Amino acid sequence: MANTTKDPTFHKKSWFRPRVEWLLAFLPVAFVLEFTHGPEVPLFITAALSVLPLALLMGHATEELALRSGPQLGGFLNATFGNLAELIIAFFLIMEGEIEIVKASLTGAIIGNVLLILGLSFLVGGWKRQHQTFSLASAELHSSTLVIAAIALLMPALFFASGDVTEFRTEAVSVGVSVVLILTYAFSLFFSMKTHRSLFAHEATHEKPKWSLRRSILTLGIATVFVAVMSEFLVGALEHTTEELGLSHLFVGLIIVPLISNAAEHASAIILAAKDKMSVAIEIAIGSSVQIALFVAPVLVFLSLLTGNHLDLIFTGFEIAAVGFSAAILAFIALDGRSNWFEGLLLLSAYVIMAISFFFL
Amino acid sequence: MANTTKDPTFHKKSWFRPRVEWLLAFLPVAFVLEFTHGPEVPLFITAALSVLPLALLMGHATEELALRSGPQLGGFLNATFGNLAELIIAFFLIMEGEIEIVKASLTGAIIGNVLLILGLSFLVGGWKRQHQTFSLASAELHSSTLVIAAIALLMPALFFASGDVTEFRTEAVSVGVSVVLILTYAFSLFFSMKTHRSLFAHEATHEKPKWSLRRSILTLGIATVFVAVMSEFLVGALEHTTEELGLSHLFVGLIIVPLISNAAEHASAIILAAKDKMSVAIEIAIGSSVQIALFVAPVLVFLSLLTGNHLDLIFTGFEIAAVGFSAAILAFIALDGRSNWFEGLLLLSAYVIMAISFFFL
Amino acid sequence: MANTTKDPTFHKKSWFRPRVEWLLAFLPVAFVLEFTHGPEVPLFITAALSVLPLALLMGHATEELALRSGPQLGGFLNATFGNLAELIIAFFLIMEGEIEIVKASLTGAIIGNVLLILGLSFLVGGWKRQHQTFSLASAELHSSTLVIAAIALLMPALFFASGDVTEFRTEAVSVGVSVVLILTYAFSLFFSMKTHRSLFAHEATHEKPKWSLRRSILTLGIATVFVAVMSEFLVGALEHTTEELGLSHLFVGLIIVPLISNAAEHASAIILAAKDKMSVAIEIAIGSSVQIALFVAPVLVFLSLLTGNHLDLIFTGFEIAAVGFSAAILAFIALDGRSNWFEGLLLLSAYVIMAISFFFL
Repeated sequence: MANTTKDPTFHKKSWFRPRVEWLLAFLPVAFVLEFTHGPEVPLFITAALSVLPLALLMGHATEELALRSGPQLGGFLNATFGNLAELIIAFFLIMEGEIEIVKASLTGAIIGNVLLILGLSFLVGGWKRQHQTFSLASAELHSSTLVIAAIALLMPALFFASGDVTEFRTEAVSVGVSVVLILTYAFSLFFSMKTHRSLFAHEATHEKPKWSLRRSILTLGIATVFVAVMSEFLVGALEHTTEELGLSHLFVGLIIVPLISNAAEHASAIILAAKDKMSVAIEIAIGSSVQIALFVAPVLVFLSLLTGNHLDLIFTGFEIAAVGFSAAILAFIALDGRSNWFEGLLLLSAYVIMAISFFFL
Repeated sequence: MANTTKDPTFHKKSWFRPRVEWLLAFLPVAFVLEFTHGPEVPLFITAALSVLPLALLMGHATEELALRSGPQLGGFLNATFGNLAELIIAFFLIMEGEIEIVKASLTGAIIGNVLLILGLSFLVGGWKRQHQTFSLASAELHSSTLVIAAIALLMPALFFASGDVTEFRTEAVSVGVSVVLILTYAFSLFFSMKTHRSLFAHEATHEKPKWSLRRSILTLGIATVFVAVMSEFLVGALEHTTEELGLSHLFVGLIIVPLISNAAEHASAIILAAKDKMSVAIEIAIGSSVQIALFVAPVLVFLSLLTGNHLDLIFTGFEIAAVGFSAAILAFIALDGRSNWFEGLLLLSAYVIMAISFFFL
Repeated sequence: MANTTKDPTFHKKSWFRPRVEWLLAFLPVAFVLEFTHGPEVPLFITAALSVLPLALLMGHATEELALRSGPQLGGFLNATFGNLAELIIAFFLIMEGEIEIVKASLTGAIIGNVLLILGLSFLVGGWKRQHQTFSLASAELHSSTLVIAAIALLMPALFFASGDVTEFRTEAVSVGVSVVLILTYAFSLFFSMKTHRSLFAHEATHEKPKWSLRRSILTLGIATVFVAVMSEFLVGALEHTTEELGLSHLFVGLIIVPLISNAAEHASAIILAAKDKMSVAIEIAIGSSVQIALFVAPVLVFLSLLTGNHLDLIFTGFEIAAVGFSAAILAFIALDGRSNWFEGLLLLSAYVIMAISFFFL
């Protein structure tokens, strides 16, 4: 449901995309630092900065492929590759055994989408405007999916909190829940592409592809490979970097990793909000969260079974609280159908307060 | 507020009721198994299956009595006897000292009504339909009553969590809260039958009674006696059955007991949803939950004072979380006024995920 | 945003204000009891009763000053001095080292505004009326501000629950969060007085000041001094009184202190509700809560740094639950746009059940 380049005017505007692509200059720097065994903090930062334009390119290539392959398969491609950068980084974190950071990054992505992206969208879009309106039907549908998805994702933790936890039980519940989540995801694709397509119609549907099929596939493949390599560098330098900068693992997982892997989506949602296309901005932010809960999380659980480091879905109390709060806030906003700059500021305040709490934890 | 046979077409349709009443064949089997000291698992299952048609008969007889006694007394009868089967099973569980299962069955009934009944209603009703609409005013009123009732019911636990718990305090709070709940229930009857009757008007009001007064009272009496006997059998075989099948007490209380005692209501809500009478389906599901929180729970507390096994209202953390989540989900749905099959699927996903978690606990 | 005398008819009606002002008779009694070292329970009660008319006078004087100083400065005055009595009592409690009571009184004020004031307003206003309607836009805006403010206020506690708590970290987070809250407050004033003034327009705007500037300033000054003195007496007699009456500290903080400092607001909200001016009644109740979360709480944190007893923002689990529940209830009510007497009764039930739980804790 989420993709980074839904906006048709994206192609015409030349002032924004160059600025992001300039960040590709950090790609060779990261390579040099890695292979010269240079200092780890600059390596972490350059690898992180390189991921931003790569994720944007992946989104763009996916969108081009989607335009060529008709609405059905196209929607599936968009939905599946929309969070690919996130999936790749998380996979390398699992390989490294950083299970807590992976779980934190899943909840962090949901919080970030709801509080940070929507907050900035409302603030930027609402500035100089009395209020902005958006499609209530679409916002409600996405929000209720997110609320239920988040609840589903977090439920095992709650019931485990007081139980007699064994490794077998933890895994049985995590895998069982993952199966339910991914089935729900399959049905959600059937719903949004078959039985209720009209609810999800975008302004972008009459758009023509700009890239050739070959260019699209090549771009997607190359960008994916580079994101994987950068993720390797990132994860390798993570331990040392957090120590040197005095950051907690939780802060990295909840705030920094989601920022890196979702920056492209953040940018396009905010640009759309500034153009008063609030419905699409909200769809990107919330759709991306739904995908993380229903698709990325269970896929990571399954992938982790192939490695020695099994990912469970037993989140900590404050991860649950943070997501619960975000969902509650979303309820207020989605069931209202209009936004203004102060609502955006309130969302950002909540995000900053969370970040302060995470930082000192 | 909830009753099982509100639908006027119930009498005309002959294909459904026979199928339920066939289950009465298990009644003699249960008797034979009990008095021959037969194996306990089949006894548990046959007693459970016998309760389903008995509960349906009780609902039907209550409805017939209600039709004869005018809207005021009739509404009172429906409201009071609507969850009688639940009350009887819970009473025998209290007699047996299974306090944890009773408490779990109260929360399980609320979760089951909101997630399972509404989920199936939305899924079955929404299949082949773009969406279904329902009366927003009635849904809102019921939902807010449920949310506040559930909160009221769960609050003592929260405040006890961190306190200095003594038996006297536990009982003082449980009885005090029960008095408030039952007074609230009395006022809710006054509200729904006197000052705001129009908000609760059903399609069923112009219906004529089909049974004689004598037949109605006899049916109600006999069905109640048999439900009591079956409950005795059920509770007697419970300990052994859960052990043999490897089920946790919590799973039995939260999932199995509510399924047995509410199956009739489940069936009629889903049939109504399939006929696109979503307002009444929702009223049955949510009304039944309200009754459990405001009437069944406090009555059980008072009854338990007569036995040696006092029932308190101090629920566990995940019972609170499960009810809280269900209420939050309900908020999203009720304040929206329309449903589709995917919303139903999401509710069912949440229920299945809860059941998986309970099962492995 | 909240002030006690918004209603224009307040000045004309003479039957109500005299009754409150008669309570000033307790002021000299409190002085006599304090200086003769009389019994502490009567001192506590007379000091508490004296605060009620003084808070009303402060509110009235502020309103008169606001009318003289134009809408911009006037709004600022109303917003800043609206909870002055609360601020003064809390400050003396901090001086005395009663940090837990101060924190409880902050959450108690939010709960009291949402459950008790709104409950009584709905009950009294809805009596003999089918339903009352109120401005959805204003209620939504206030509610979402409150929900987010309350979340912001409570978040540090959640994240601390599982963390490695040191005194430095507690203070860093409390001060950091306070800075964010007070900045948010500043922006909320900018929002309500500059960019979105029209959303907050009252019936009272065409009102003329009745008091001279001199009389207003003198009244405000004298009432403030007496509130400070009475707070000193109150806090001094608190320890002994709670012990003698068998009340827990939490009960005093959550129920009694907020009742004393907010009684004037309670009264005017209920009177407005009875006159079917539900929009203003709701604005007083919720606006006052917003002010407590965004202004009173951070100001108290900063003031406490000047004393030896530092106030942190790490609330207990049931304070969080109580506020969370209140916010959830509010969501249901605010997003509905109409109220009736039974909704009021439900809110009051929730309040009474909370009070029972607090009492036995």
